[in-house]
Amino acid sequence: MFNKLCIVGVGLIGGSVASAARKRRLCRQIVALGRREDLENLQRARQLGIIDAYHYDPGSAVQDADYIVIATPVGAIEAVLAELEKHWSDTAIYTDTGSTKGSVIAAAKKVFGKVPANFVPAHPIAGSENSGVDAADPDLFQDKRLIITPLPDNSLQALTAVQEFWEQLGSSVASMPAGHHDAVLAATSHIPHILAFSLVEMLGKKDEQIEIFQYAAGGFKDFTRIASSDPTMWRDICLANSQEIVPLLEELQDRLAGIVQMLENQDSGTLFELFTYANQARQRFLDQIEK
Amino acid sequence: MFNKLCIVGVGLIGGSVASAARKRRLCRQIVALGRREDLENLQRARQLGIIDAYHYDPGSAVQDADYIVIATPVGAIEAVLAELEKHWSDTAIYTDTGSTKGSVIAAAKKVFGKVPANFVPAHPIAGSENSGVDAADPDLFQDKRLIITPLPDNSLQALTAVQEFWEQLGSSVASMPAGHHDAVLAATSHIPHILAFSLVEMLGKKDEQIEIFQYAAGGFKDFTRIASSDPTMWRDICLANSQEIVPLLEELQDRLAGIVQMLENQDSGTLFELFTYANQARQRFLDQIEK
Repeated sequence: MFNKLCIVGVGLIGGSVASAARKRRLCRQIVALGRREDLENLQRARQLGIIDAYHYDPGSAVQDADYIVIATPVGAIEAVLAELEKHWSDTAIYTDTGSTKGSVIAAAKKVFGKVPANFVPAHPIAGSENSGVDAADPDLFQDKRLIITPLPDNSLQALTAVQEFWEQLGSSVASMPAGHHDAVLAATSHIPHILAFSLVEMLGKKDEQIEIFQYAAGGFKDFTRIASSDPTMWRDICLANSQEIVPLLEELQDRLAGIVQMLENQDSGTLFELFTYANQARQRFLDQIEK
Repeated sequence: MFNKLCIVGVGLIGGSVASAARKRRLCRQIVALGRREDLENLQRARQLGIIDAYHYDPGSAVQDADYIVIATPVGAIEAVLAELEKHWSDTAIYTDTGSTKGSVIAAAKKVFGKVPANFVPAHPIAGSENSGVDAADPDLFQDKRLIITPLPDNSLQALTAVQEFWEQLGSSVASMPAGHHDAVLAATSHIPHILAFSLVEMLGKKDEQIEIFQYAAGGFKDFTRIASSDPTMWRDICLANSQEIVPLLEELQDRLAGIVQMLENQDSGTLFELFTYANQARQRFLDQIEK
């Protein structure tokens, strides 16, 4: 059991890290570093017993902390690192939970010149369309994957500590280069979010939207679930990973143009092949996650 | 309790109609009309007790039947109506479960010259990504919406009978013009299916697909669930409703092109507005379905 955990940004993910750490008795004390405009959320986190205290001042928040977990939207990470820099401890372990890793590493390089040896970028592949500390779940990371994107500058001690930290929260930890992480996540997470947001926005602006939504079935509900995700978080992710997202989005647009052609030509055979291929590919996906 | 129900096409939907009718004791006997190539599925339906008998010959299948429910993929409905035409009964009630109504009405007009007074097109807004009679569920229609698209030629008696039939299976029955139905369903069902099929096909063809699928989370699983749907059924729906689907797909492509622009320009404000609008629109959808 270590002494003090500091969470920067106590939303869905930060709150879940805190409550998971508490439930598994990893540390004695949990504090949050937050902003004055998040007062209500910080009070709520304390009221729920997820944190013991909160601070607006980075110095007080990180003082004697063993682990510091940055769980803000990725667009805020550079500012957070700049704040933490003045109080940086060489003995503490720093990690983050951002959904894009290239941008986090770039932010660290900007602030520190190079990524500090004891800052290990990480991304838990877990979440929910709900946001805020009320959605925090101590078992959010249980049996989920967590990706570490290590850097040559990282100390072995920090890498091991971050891996152990997440394993103790129940995650299965893997490691890959940041660029590869960002490409994979663009495909399976960022693009689906953009599609769900776009479709719901488009339908929501139609005059007949009430009727459209009224006759939507379970398929639509599941398909659009991620469109209920936090807009700030997703704006930041999309902007931070636009390099990977744009080519994929353009590739998908080509494929949709192909489907428009098939429909206009009533090209039954090609459409059937495409749907059959997709149906089988999803089965491969299901087989994969059941392993 | 009526005497005999005949189901044409005992897959997920046809099988669910049969087992729902049996569970609610709506009729004494349930038979299926099928094709020789579906022998295995027909035998399975009888083995499961979902039907009492099956026939390849339409004359035997519909003989003395009170209700005939056509539950084949929509592309097969014209051929089914042509087969039923020789044995058409003026006292029986005919309905279907097709996801596109304009195409079903066109098929009936082609076969009969006009839609028969006792054939009422209908569409249960219920389903599953699973297919075949093994996926049949006696409660599939419980608390779900069912849309009837009545025609001027329909008898009031047939309209009432079809409405009562579906209400007895637990559905909440609404009525709207076929063209309107097809526009609404293109938006909430056909377009999402096309997007899910396209994305999974695109990712499934990538070299790194195993890794992509390995690090996909719950969001991806829900978003792509409908890509596991039956390819034949969905090929037929997309071809039958291409008139409504194509303009919506083109509209969505414009919106995706807009997002590509926002990402390339790092246009944080517009992207945030779009995601916020979508987030709120989905909340309106959730409020709507909870009513």
